[in-house]
Amino acid sequence: MKILVTGGAGYIGSHICVELLQAGHDVVVIDDFSNSQPEVLEYIHEITGKNVQFYEFNILDEAKTEKVFQENQLDAIIHCAAFKAVGESVSKPIEYYTNNLMTTLIVTKMMRDYHVNNIVFSSSATVYGDPKVVPLTEDCPLGETTNPYGTSKAMMERVLTDVQHAYPQMSVTLLRYFNPIGAHASGLIGENPKGIPNNLMPYVMKVATGELSCLGVFGDDYDTPDGTGVRDYIHVVDLAKGHVAAIEKYSQPGVHICNLGTGKGYSVLDIVKAFEKVNGVKVNYEIKARRPGDIATCYADPTRAKEELGWVAEKTLEDMCRDTWNFAKKH
Amino acid sequence: MKILVTGGAGYIGSHICVELLQAGHDVVVIDDFSNSQPEVLEYIHEITGKNVQFYEFNILDEAKTEKVFQENQLDAIIHCAAFKAVGESVSKPIEYYTNNLMTTLIVTKMMRDYHVNNIVFSSSATVYGDPKVVPLTEDCPLGETTNPYGTSKAMMERVLTDVQHAYPQMSVTLLRYFNPIGAHASGLIGENPKGIPNNLMPYVMKVATGELSCLGVFGDDYDTPDGTGVRDYIHVVDLAKGHVAAIEKYSQPGVHICNLGTGKGYSVLDIVKAFEKVNGVKVNYEIKARRPGDIATCYADPTRAKEELGWVAEKTLEDMCRDTWNFAKKH
Repeated sequence: MKILVTGGAGYIGSHICVELLQAGHDVVVIDDFSNSQPEVLEYIHEITGKNVQFYEFNILDEAKTEKVFQENQLDAIIHCAAFKAVGESVSKPIEYYTNNLMTTLIVTKMMRDYHVNNIVFSSSATVYGDPKVVPLTEDCPLGETTNPYGTSKAMMERVLTDVQHAYPQMSVTLLRYFNPIGAHASGLIGENPKGIPNNLMPYVMKVATGELSCLGVFGDDYDTPDGTGVRDYIHVVDLAKGHVAAIEKYSQPGVHICNLGTGKGYSVLDIVKAFEKVNGVKVNYEIKARRPGDIATCYADPTRAKEELGWVAEKTLEDMCRDTWNFAKKH
Repeated sequence: MKILVTGGAGYIGSHICVELLQAGHDVVVIDDFSNSQPEVLEYIHEITGKNVQFYEFNILDEAKTEKVFQENQLDAIIHCAAFKAVGESVSKPIEYYTNNLMTTLIVTKMMRDYHVNNIVFSSSATVYGDPKVVPLTEDCPLGETTNPYGTSKAMMERVLTDVQHAYPQMSVTLLRYFNPIGAHASGLIGENPKGIPNNLMPYVMKVATGELSCLGVFGDDYDTPDGTGVRDYIHVVDLAKGHVAAIEKYSQPGVHICNLGTGKGYSVLDIVKAFEKVNGVKVNYEIKARRPGDIATCYADPTRAKEELGWVAEKTLEDMCRDTWNFAKKH
């Protein structure tokens, strides 16, 4: 298949490109490098021996986006392009809603106009809000999102669902990611956010390298085994493989919703200790006050992915820690 | 004050322009006539003896919108511009979401960049979904919207709320309209939708004129006094006056939410009978099956509007029927 990966130079997008190329697909990428680096394209080539067809611009440029659809007979889209920093979304809601909603609307418009009927969307477990029960199945009700990033994900799910209802030949797949971490085993691609990281693992990585002095752990009085927040961390390569399975298996018309998680929860301190042990490094941390909007525990029920996609997360927490450090040392 | 009314040539927008002008405000209008007629501007002049400053384009044209903010020192915005046909929104979700969300985002961006801190937004009681209890107060939880039109209203409320949180000097007012009907007493402006009407009163009007043969009444087995759906019909001139009150009273920073309704519910058959009696005409109707998504009963608790805005709906159902017919006869 010829597949367009929007945001294909980003952290998750680049790993998806690698897995798609290795599975024999042709890959077209649109990325504006707003949160990624051009070298990533070379690394993808180095890993796979293949090239993606690359276009550099923001999808908000509708004319350029249309040209990509004109120049390529696309079979499917994996739509990863989005702003994703939770804190920044609170201070820049106009930019977040505009970028995330409009890119999605432009992509769906091009799909309709150019008869591309299969889209896999990067959603997030954040759409479940504060879970009433864990593990979370896809049938759990959607919850209150607490920031424009999360709200934009919930809105995009709704937009895509309504679009599928209007154009019933479409296959719309909403993949709800839990917490992707880790890096490619090659150490070539991984998560290297500009500025202060928003997520735990890049922060741990930068404390381990000495770039940052100390990890802030926000709250140690949650109702969890060690009091720190528990999440379902999933290796980004497993996540990427889930996309390859989804694009191949969810081709029939309809709205398909699927969690991508491991089904196991680890606490912040589990991650810190595993990272220290696996990599033989020290990660200084300091307990701080809880952050508003944070929840105690969140992990997936990954049953549907296993049953419908034949996909399970295979990599361990040790893999995630080792691959992250391997990536850090090379960059 | 100098106030921009987006969609100011539309049904509700034009009545707002009249009330603003009569209250001594200066009015700037942007409208693309996608669901209105240029003559409306002359009628506004005829009623008030004053002119609005008019710009013809769709706000999606960001450069033209910016020019309006550059050329005018605006004190406030009343943002009415939106696509509003429920049924059409189901078949054209991409257009509805794009138009409604993006115009709102562009308006908020211009407000931020040009330091305009007061916006009154045309929201809808549809954001309450299927009410658990009536009358609806502003503290009732938001409900499930059943079509992209309603969903876009709920999304725009959320976007505007998040924008206010990011720019706390702003005053964001969400006016939740119940069911605006009627026309200006002059008979010059009113609701004259292109094609088959989506709402009850324009349909009743077109059956009375003979333009349409028969009114379909969707369901007579609801749990209401006569079995037909009960709504809170509000005279459009009352509604418009509510905007003048809101723009003047809700100037302090924050998010202000206010119902605009009468607090009284009338059934479909109440409307038909009142229209026949007041105007001495016959309105043929036929009972049909319920429509999916329709609810039995919905009416406002208008207490907050009375307390905070000093506003109450003053016109009667008879006024609404008479003014509608007066408008119909003149057009």
